[in-house]
Amino acid sequence: MRVALGLEYDGCAYEGWQTQPSRRTVQDVLQAAVFKFTQEKVKAVCAGRTDAGVHATGQVVHLDAMAIRTEQSWVRGVNSFLEPTVCVRWARIVPDDFHARFSAFSRSYEYWIANEPMRSALLAGRTAWIFRPLDEQRMQEATTSLIGTHDFSSFRAAGCQSKTPIKTISEMSVDRFGRLIRIRVKADGFLYHMVRNIVGCLVYIGTGARPVEWMQEVLEAKSRDAAAPTSYPAGLYLSRVGYPEKFGLPDKGKSPFAVDE
Amino acid sequence: MRVALGLEYDGCAYEGWQTQPSRRTVQDVLQAAVFKFTQEKVKAVCAGRTDAGVHATGQVVHLDAMAIRTEQSWVRGVNSFLEPTVCVRWARIVPDDFHARFSAFSRSYEYWIANEPMRSALLAGRTAWIFRPLDEQRMQEATTSLIGTHDFSSFRAAGCQSKTPIKTISEMSVDRFGRLIRIRVKADGFLYHMVRNIVGCLVYIGTGARPVEWMQEVLEAKSRDAAAPTSYPAGLYLSRVGYPEKFGLPDKGKSPFAVDE
Repeated sequence: MRVALGLEYDGCAYEGWQTQPSRRTVQDVLQAAVFKFTQEKVKAVCAGRTDAGVHATGQVVHLDAMAIRTEQSWVRGVNSFLEPTVCVRWARIVPDDFHARFSAFSRSYEYWIANEPMRSALLAGRTAWIFRPLDEQRMQEATTSLIGTHDFSSFRAAGCQSKTPIKTISEMSVDRFGRLIRIRVKADGFLYHMVRNIVGCLVYIGTGARPVEWMQEVLEAKSRDAAAPTSYPAGLYLSRVGYPEKFGLPDKGKSPFAVDE
Repeated sequence: MRVALGLEYDGCAYEGWQTQPSRRTVQDVLQAAVFKFTQEKVKAVCAGRTDAGVHATGQVVHLDAMAIRTEQSWVRGVNSFLEPTVCVRWARIVPDDFHARFSAFSRSYEYWIANEPMRSALLAGRTAWIFRPLDEQRMQEATTSLIGTHDFSSFRAAGCQSKTPIKTISEMSVDRFGRLIRIRVKADGFLYHMVRNIVGCLVYIGTGARPVEWMQEVLEAKSRDAAAPTSYPAGLYLSRVGYPEKFGLPDKGKSPFAVDE
């Protein structure tokens, strides 16, 4: 049977999603836990590969297993073999034509910034830290250049495996909660480091180092050289993967910051 | 000169506040950082000793040093020798009659509970996890028995060094933010494990295992045997220490959960 699992993990504890010789990736520890649970060597396929230090509240994976287990048993069974920094939030038995990556029609990320003069120990690894004051309204204005279908080459890192630099951002917003700034972005797909490169530019605009209109220039340049440096991985959360309704998957992770619950 | 420092730390990384042979306590790493900064062996005195796994957003310490440094220099200098899981949030040069523990007239704690069916990887170590539904209004009602001056022997753990079991709780509240429940309590002082023992009882009342009136019974019993088990250290944050205004100290830490900022 094919099983889809909703995953949450603390990216600080892992060298990203994809399996590595060190065995300290989310894929490695998940597959090891499934092996302990079912005695089967499975390969887990994820909706969005995350880099080292990047978190997920709404990662989705699928795997094929001979074992027959209930959905609840998948959740409790696999969780019992997972360490505290990663967990299965839900499980669904899915048809064989479901594919965590190829069936997904949208991905949503959140990026959190602690914007205050001093660093925070409890936010270390959970948010980026920008000590210069950020104007979130300027940042919000700058997002309007990005919404829609564009060639996002300016925000594409080397090593990107996407067939095309053209993606569609359907929603984007910047909100402040006291010292914290949340940037949300939803698209059909993302280029490698695209969110972190966009955030780098938003920070330049937020501090006043660049005007709001600069985002449009960067986009039109279609060159990575035009954009700001890539922002830290620490603030990034894969929060949601959208699938056709027929699969009936819960599609939203829960923020660890007690907002929008 | 005597210096007061405001500290934030992730309790998961330390074996509590107080120095231990392992050198993995907050006091040890703070004193080691001060030594690197000033070449002086100092003894840091804190407002409230925290146990292993207990966090602080508003811990206050004082120490005496020969070195003459500005307040800003104390913050940046000590922080540059501290690991990411602990930081100095502010520094104030204080008169010699200031004492982090004895000058304090109040301490405030927050206790956070993730109340949801499945555990959360990103909240691991940051909140307690109670999977049974909690009724926060029942919990709030139960706090009314505790507000005021009482003999809190029922909530006092063995090994408590307080001279008296009589303390005054001036404020207490229970609030829900989606899946998260926050319990706040402010008192002139606390007995050993007092907050965690009170929270244990509030959880019993929140799940319906005990009636709201049971809190009054527990209080009046003046016996530890009457209360519920001690709740987990993970959810507990020392958030604020109150001092006479003449010292001019910032007295409130910032929650890592993006509320009340």
